[in-house]
Amino acid sequence: MIRFTKMHGLGNDFVVLDGLRQTLEPSPEWIRMLADRHFGIGCDQVLIVEQPRAQGTDFHYRIFNADGGEVGQCGNGARCFARFVRDQGLTDKDRIRVGTAAGVIELTLLADGRVHVDMGRPQFDPRRIPFLAQARANAYVLGLATGNLAIGVVGLGNPHAVTLVDDLDRAPIERLGPLIVAHQDFPEGVNAGFMQVLATDRARLRVFERGVGETLACGSGACAAVVCGRQWGLLGERVQIELPGGELTIEWPGGDTSIGMIGPATRVFDGELAS
Amino acid sequence: MIRFTKMHGLGNDFVVLDGLRQTLEPSPEWIRMLADRHFGIGCDQVLIVEQPRAQGTDFHYRIFNADGGEVGQCGNGARCFARFVRDQGLTDKDRIRVGTAAGVIELTLLADGRVHVDMGRPQFDPRRIPFLAQARANAYVLGLATGNLAIGVVGLGNPHAVTLVDDLDRAPIERLGPLIVAHQDFPEGVNAGFMQVLATDRARLRVFERGVGETLACGSGACAAVVCGRQWGLLGERVQIELPGGELTIEWPGGDTSIGMIGPATRVFDGELAS
Repeated sequence: MIRFTKMHGLGNDFVVLDGLRQTLEPSPEWIRMLADRHFGIGCDQVLIVEQPRAQGTDFHYRIFNADGGEVGQCGNGARCFARFVRDQGLTDKDRIRVGTAAGVIELTLLADGRVHVDMGRPQFDPRRIPFLAQARANAYVLGLATGNLAIGVVGLGNPHAVTLVDDLDRAPIERLGPLIVAHQDFPEGVNAGFMQVLATDRARLRVFERGVGETLACGSGACAAVVCGRQWGLLGERVQIELPGGELTIEWPGGDTSIGMIGPATRVFDGELAS
Repeated sequence: MIRFTKMHGLGNDFVVLDGLRQTLEPSPEWIRMLADRHFGIGCDQVLIVEQPRAQGTDFHYRIFNADGGEVGQCGNGARCFARFVRDQGLTDKDRIRVGTAAGVIELTLLADGRVHVDMGRPQFDPRRIPFLAQARANAYVLGLATGNLAIGVVGLGNPHAVTLVDDLDRAPIERLGPLIVAHQDFPEGVNAGFMQVLATDRARLRVFERGVGETLACGSGACAAVVCGRQWGLLGERVQIELPGGELTIEWPGGDTSIGMIGPATRVFDGELAS
């Protein structure tokens, strides 16, 4: 009998499994079954805790998409992972170093129950994002069928384009989102963020993710929006980002430093699969 | 801490709660939280077992839609309800009489694990379905923007229109379904079934439910399809209906007798809500 915990980070939801105290064989078919919202448990991603593989790490952390494929990173999932290993008594540390397919990440449990995720340093070099531009700039002009659009572009493990709107509720986001995501200047696609700045420490954001569509709370998208907003002189070092699924706090001192994402991780229920 | 079981009948999925051994207060807000697929458990409907209210019944059975509203009946849910009360040891009977907001239903657990649901007698009187027709007939012609369509019409607690297609995969179901569901001749709307008869004992079916859209497995729609097919001389007394979510067996001797629906009820997992 397999035990699991259902969690979410701002509505981005996860089935989290302890692979230390129970033996799991995560085949793509089994992951798809778990993730199915009618025939299984239902989730955006399945997260599995395993024994550490890299030196200096506390755990290895595997992430599977609902289609069964293994992927590298997810900010909302990382917060849930940290909350899970603490709630389950798998560690008593506040600062946890975790190996993933995309490298080592550092997670910190805060006193208020939220989790801080070190999201790494932003990538600005167009070739490495990848983005077809001659040279690095704070803003670019993207040609769309609907007209030209000013965007910021930043890499955070995955490519992000960010554009400003004055009213997030009225902007033609459903029309523009798919055009940006599939634009030819992004050879591997891009996540498209639409930001309305409310103050130097607060903004609203909606994100279209490549291959997914609009999501409730894109963590790396929130980081990208703050990086762009800060480069444009609109935002400060510590910003509250209001996403459809809830709020994240993003910290970025600027320059070549790494970005901190702080947000909630909510345990909804514990379950035992019928055999 | 509240315990629940997640079940499905051919992909139509349910959170089932024992209201006998734990105290539940099913407010609409709470039901909506449970049914939410990202922030809660996720299901089409929430089913609650309560103490019997009517004489000669074993339980009272309450059914809530995902929007929090209480409703009268669901064939797939009834099978899961029967399986649940037996698996939980709440009864040792094979035949269970259950009071619902829509009247008493009889559920029978079969030796192969499937459940037989007495779906009641079909209603043919147009005024009681309700359907705007002069008199009862085996077939009617429905005027649609796309042309005239021959349909059978039958009431089974809710109104059903059934039409024949020769190839379920190629028929313009996505276009016709919404037109039938909202047709003015059905003052309370109608569920629209599209049936491809494969043999006198086997047919394929897709159903558009009013207010919902196409579903994986509409139990009363399967019964309506067999009633119509039998009246047209195409189907026998016992028919396998292939739905997108799986198979149901429908039994109807004809005339003024009640219809039997036989199908599976699958327990996926047991859970405990985080407080």
